[in-house]
Amino acid sequence: MKAQVLHKYDMALTAPNWVTLQDVPDPKIAKSTDVIVRIGGAGVCRTDLHIVEGVWMPITDPTGDKLLPLIMGHENAGWVEEIGPEVEGFKIGDPVIVHPKVTGGTCLACRRGHDMHGDGKFPGLDSNGGYAEALLTSSRNLVALPKTLAPKDVAPYADAGLTAYRAAKKAAQVLLPDQTAVVIGAGGLGHIGVQVLRAMCAARIIVVDISDVSLKLAGEGGADHLVKADGDEVDAVLALTGGKGAEAVIDFVGEKGTTKKGLDMTRANGSYYIVGYGENINIPTVDLISTERNIIGNLVGTWAELTELMALADRGLVELATKHYKLSEANQALQDLHHGKIKGRAVLVP
Amino acid sequence: MKAQVLHKYDMALTAPNWVTLQDVPDPKIAKSTDVIVRIGGAGVCRTDLHIVEGVWMPITDPTGDKLLPLIMGHENAGWVEEIGPEVEGFKIGDPVIVHPKVTGGTCLACRRGHDMHGDGKFPGLDSNGGYAEALLTSSRNLVALPKTLAPKDVAPYADAGLTAYRAAKKAAQVLLPDQTAVVIGAGGLGHIGVQVLRAMCAARIIVVDISDVSLKLAGEGGADHLVKADGDEVDAVLALTGGKGAEAVIDFVGEKGTTKKGLDMTRANGSYYIVGYGENINIPTVDLISTERNIIGNLVGTWAELTELMALADRGLVELATKHYKLSEANQALQDLHHGKIKGRAVLVP
Amino acid sequence: MKAQVLHKYDMALTAPNWVTLQDVPDPKIAKSTDVIVRIGGAGVCRTDLHIVEGVWMPITDPTGDKLLPLIMGHENAGWVEEIGPEVEGFKIGDPVIVHPKVTGGTCLACRRGHDMHGDGKFPGLDSNGGYAEALLTSSRNLVALPKTLAPKDVAPYADAGLTAYRAAKKAAQVLLPDQTAVVIGAGGLGHIGVQVLRAMCAARIIVVDISDVSLKLAGEGGADHLVKADGDEVDAVLALTGGKGAEAVIDFVGEKGTTKKGLDMTRANGSYYIVGYGENINIPTVDLISTERNIIGNLVGTWAELTELMALADRGLVELATKHYKLSEANQALQDLHHGKIKGRAVLVP
Amino acid sequence: MKAQVLHKYDMALTAPNWVTLQDVPDPKIAKSTDVIVRIGGAGVCRTDLHIVEGVWMPITDPTGDKLLPLIMGHENAGWVEEIGPEVEGFKIGDPVIVHPKVTGGTCLACRRGHDMHGDGKFPGLDSNGGYAEALLTSSRNLVALPKTLAPKDVAPYADAGLTAYRAAKKAAQVLLPDQTAVVIGAGGLGHIGVQVLRAMCAARIIVVDISDVSLKLAGEGGADHLVKADGDEVDAVLALTGGKGAEAVIDFVGEKGTTKKGLDMTRANGSYYIVGYGENINIPTVDLISTERNIIGNLVGTWAELTELMALADRGLVELATKHYKLSEANQALQDLHHGKIKGRAVLVP
Repeated sequence: MKAQVLHKYDMALTAPNWVTLQDVPDPKIAKSTDVIVRIGGAGVCRTDLHIVEGVWMPITDPTGDKLLPLIMGHENAGWVEEIGPEVEGFKIGDPVIVHPKVTGGTCLACRRGHDMHGDGKFPGLDSNGGYAEALLTSSRNLVALPKTLAPKDVAPYADAGLTAYRAAKKAAQVLLPDQTAVVIGAGGLGHIGVQVLRAMCAARIIVVDISDVSLKLAGEGGADHLVKADGDEVDAVLALTGGKGAEAVIDFVGEKGTTKKGLDMTRANGSYYIVGYGENINIPTVDLISTERNIIGNLVGTWAELTELMALADRGLVELATKHYKLSEANQALQDLHHGKIKGRAVLVP
Repeated sequence: MKAQVLHKYDMALTAPNWVTLQDVPDPKIAKSTDVIVRIGGAGVCRTDLHIVEGVWMPITDPTGDKLLPLIMGHENAGWVEEIGPEVEGFKIGDPVIVHPKVTGGTCLACRRGHDMHGDGKFPGLDSNGGYAEALLTSSRNLVALPKTLAPKDVAPYADAGLTAYRAAKKAAQVLLPDQTAVVIGAGGLGHIGVQVLRAMCAARIIVVDISDVSLKLAGEGGADHLVKADGDEVDAVLALTGGKGAEAVIDFVGEKGTTKKGLDMTRANGSYYIVGYGENINIPTVDLISTERNIIGNLVGTWAELTELMALADRGLVELATKHYKLSEANQALQDLHHGKIKGRAVLVP
Repeated sequence: MKAQVLHKYDMALTAPNWVTLQDVPDPKIAKSTDVIVRIGGAGVCRTDLHIVEGVWMPITDPTGDKLLPLIMGHENAGWVEEIGPEVEGFKIGDPVIVHPKVTGGTCLACRRGHDMHGDGKFPGLDSNGGYAEALLTSSRNLVALPKTLAPKDVAPYADAGLTAYRAAKKAAQVLLPDQTAVVIGAGGLGHIGVQVLRAMCAARIIVVDISDVSLKLAGEGGADHLVKADGDEVDAVLALTGGKGAEAVIDFVGEKGTTKKGLDMTRANGSYYIVGYGENINIPTVDLISTERNIIGNLVGTWAELTELMALADRGLVELATKHYKLSEANQALQDLHHGKIKGRAVLVP
Repeated sequence: MKAQVLHKYDMALTAPNWVTLQDVPDPKIAKSTDVIVRIGGAGVCRTDLHIVEGVWMPITDPTGDKLLPLIMGHENAGWVEEIGPEVEGFKIGDPVIVHPKVTGGTCLACRRGHDMHGDGKFPGLDSNGGYAEALLTSSRNLVALPKTLAPKDVAPYADAGLTAYRAAKKAAQVLLPDQTAVVIGAGGLGHIGVQVLRAMCAARIIVVDISDVSLKLAGEGGADHLVKADGDEVDAVLALTGGKGAEAVIDFVGEKGTTKKGLDMTRANGSYYIVGYGENINIPTVDLISTERNIIGNLVGTWAELTELMALADRGLVELATKHYKLSEANQALQDLHHGKIKGRAVLVP
């Protein structure tokens, strides 16, 4: 099959092309519950740029010479093309979105529903992913798509959307109608987060972003107040919350000072949900205990949560802005992402 | 002051007039945190008819000769008219809605936030209520009204709305976007319940009612599916839920067979929330344990929940249909209610 | 292999022998994750008598001629004897206890951790169980035993213990130290429930039973108060709880009037947990809503909960009284159970 | 009355005497629900030393000249000596323990049960406290003592114990029997925390401390494993938890490097509870999100939680080590505390 293959790290991200379109061996069913998915859409994620830069080497390729060549792509959707002999519930041709973590399903974390905390592979990061015509995964990873949703339009939900969903859901389940949620960063993940909050709770939503385009998108997604991140955003949020801050602050940025600002916007007895990453959280213990605030970590969601997110998308409660590129244009998509030229999420299509 | 006074029970509900407009002594501040509220609106509730019928005698007037004359009216809103010397946070003229249960605030139930489980009076049932120009209550019972909300338009939230809110909130906090809620009965309480569910969770909502008018109202309030209660409503709900029933069923009727039907609509591992009352729940234990279903009782909400409900109303997420009558027309309002002539809720105004 | 086989229902339970020791074909691995367990202990449960009586026919054998001959036994523990080619985490000889419900693991219920709500077989009820030398199950059903626990001593935890654990855990997770739990029936399940409550919360525990032997056992298991069920047990519980009842009542009996008594012992804002079955729950809706009490159904626990229960047993926080019989003595065990001659639980051993 | 009065800050804590025994005016009832408590015991807390040092000046005395002279003492118990005209539920002579935060009880935080998040005074810090013969407080602050508990033996529960209780309770309510809790620091607060965990959940408990005396005390309080904090404590905890860390880590120290070590002991999907304070928490965002760990802030508990803690103490499930000093010996008690000569907690008695 055809695939876009990464052969070499580029720490400076200056090369004109990072991946190479070439013929590779077709994936093969090995275990009785394996599944091969024909790719209908593969999301292009900032994490892919980080892989090219070598940021993930310490985790996925410690010696720097074992992982490449690698087919990237961890946000995948398509159609079932081939199934192992014991796959149940799916047949050839079914449209599916693919949960990104491939686990055995028998460890205690999996058995409690926390799939992503189980041991396993993460195709696109530590094994071959979806920048290709087909992908090897497991029947445990498939979520059936309703007829309203095409693979090319939903692929980014598999990781970016699912991460935003999980964080926003945690907040929504404790927020009450008299309370306030702040979303910092209404980009790829954040604009999903805003829509999830709007659908799942009745709290007021304040969105903070540096970009007018993102703020506009957030307003369309249900935000009640839009705050330009011009340096005075903490004061602006305090002014909107009687000087006390918000019960929930979800930070989809996690760098350039948002962690301190986010905590400063968090009310006593409230929680700051960290999703984006980059800088350190650095806060005096006395500030946490005297106000009894929490800092909540957030990972990608569970398989069941991907099902929940598809239910929202099916009913139009969450919508995703996408820009499509041919598989052969993967380098263009990565460059456009690198240079901030993509609104919403880029998706590779066949 | 003027008040409408009940002097005599009428078991058959056949008298032309049940209450008498007359002069009564003004209420007086007795405790340092007492408050007198000038009535702007007093909701007329089916419970008031039950009081007239003597249904509440065993609880509020066991010997039948101690309670009357009584001023009914337990759903009250208005303006602060006089305050005790230690009232804080309210001043003369503030518009307020009045939580119906007057408690001391020091018992364990109150201290855990469950006000309505504390000991105390329930004006309108066991002491003088709001079918009058003024009402004696406590500063603990006041919820400040935002400018968007007039007392005469919100009074029924104080009990009917608050009960619907609490039940719907319990369900909303556990319902996920792939799941389904059924609301049985979209009348006075139920049409609030539908709107609360719509605002606070992303589950699909099915409404079951015998009345086309109520179903239409439910559709406007956010219901996804409307089911006419024509005898086949259980099958209709099962058909809409893959034969398995709904994760949450909220029964605002509680009589005429809805308890059995409601439980038959409740999915394994789901919960049936009972709000309306009249008949018995009668179910084999084996049916509950083999499916692990729950039956959840629901009372009026807490003071904090009345605050939450006002936040929803303030932002237009919940709306109430009301019909206004002069205080002098109380008998007409009660008769209209008795004869099913009121859409939404009747409210007495000055 | 040898097995005890049920060939004929006996509605009256009067036959001297119900099962027949005979040679049957060895179970065979069919799926890649199948496992054959050599039986070290098979619990003898009242449900087995109900199977003999035909009580389960409507569910497992509607036409009455499709299920028998059947090998009963749904509480099994032993050693891994043979594994399918894709079993991971277990090897031949490992001591294990077997979760009773065999599921595929891919439905939404399973993926949320609620295994027992998934579709599947229940060996011993609807397919061949553990009254035999070996049992066919799946790797998903195995929980590894710590060295402190022998299969013959833990087998009844697989169903009876796991059901008691789940109900007691639900209560323990909401009970506070100033509150009270009542356990009705401290027999096979109940005496586990008492120990689980004692280990997992700090509420006061009152145990109600008709048997002095059971009450004594409950006292040793950590009960604070023992109440003889002599007809005045409701008054006795009310006297111990300031006239208000207990925040949690767990009913392991569910017949002979315990459902009404149990609800009468349940405090306003409290929950009645039903585990045992037999009679109907029959209660006026007004009694549930005016007190806001809940009725909570309880099924057998999840695989993860079986792991939790084994952690308790491993550390001696829960102990099980057992009486051992040879596999060849299965009829004797069943007769002894039928005639109330077993203290704790009967277990068949090789 | 007699009181020990602080007249002057001592930043270096080098003065031989910090407080002066003198006659001061008796406290007077001002509000209808005020209460005067005759002191039976006043806990001496490290926070008192911090007050003397001026650590609290920025919060309680920003200009440094408004607060002193001050009577310290925020952990008080005694007997009701005088009550305002509207106090209910208490009479002269009743033994009580005093919740430390005096609030009005009408703000939303109070109404949801979170008293300590309401506005109000904190006697002993920002107004006169219990280093005296009597204390002015409110009826809302009183928790009745059972006969088993004398004021002088329980006073430190009012703040130190209540803080430990709240943190341990939060952890206990989510810990399962197969999981592990680590307690860092088994001193005044920590040794209460260990006992609370032991009473309220069935998780394994590992205690980490630098002091053999504290470890011994923790072992008596129910710890399963004792780890000397000798520099290798993280490795020791990892070795006890299969290399993965504990689901809950409660840090009662919060300085000298325990925050980093505590987080390093916290398992993926687990929570680190911070109670002690001093240093900063400083952690890369990527470390929190890739493991989905939480940092949970902890303040003193609610009035209801003080009731819960008294229920534990009443039944002997929590015990407190105390050392008594006469009120006239307050300087000695403070000096002994400053020089690490007190095992458990110092209490001033009449």
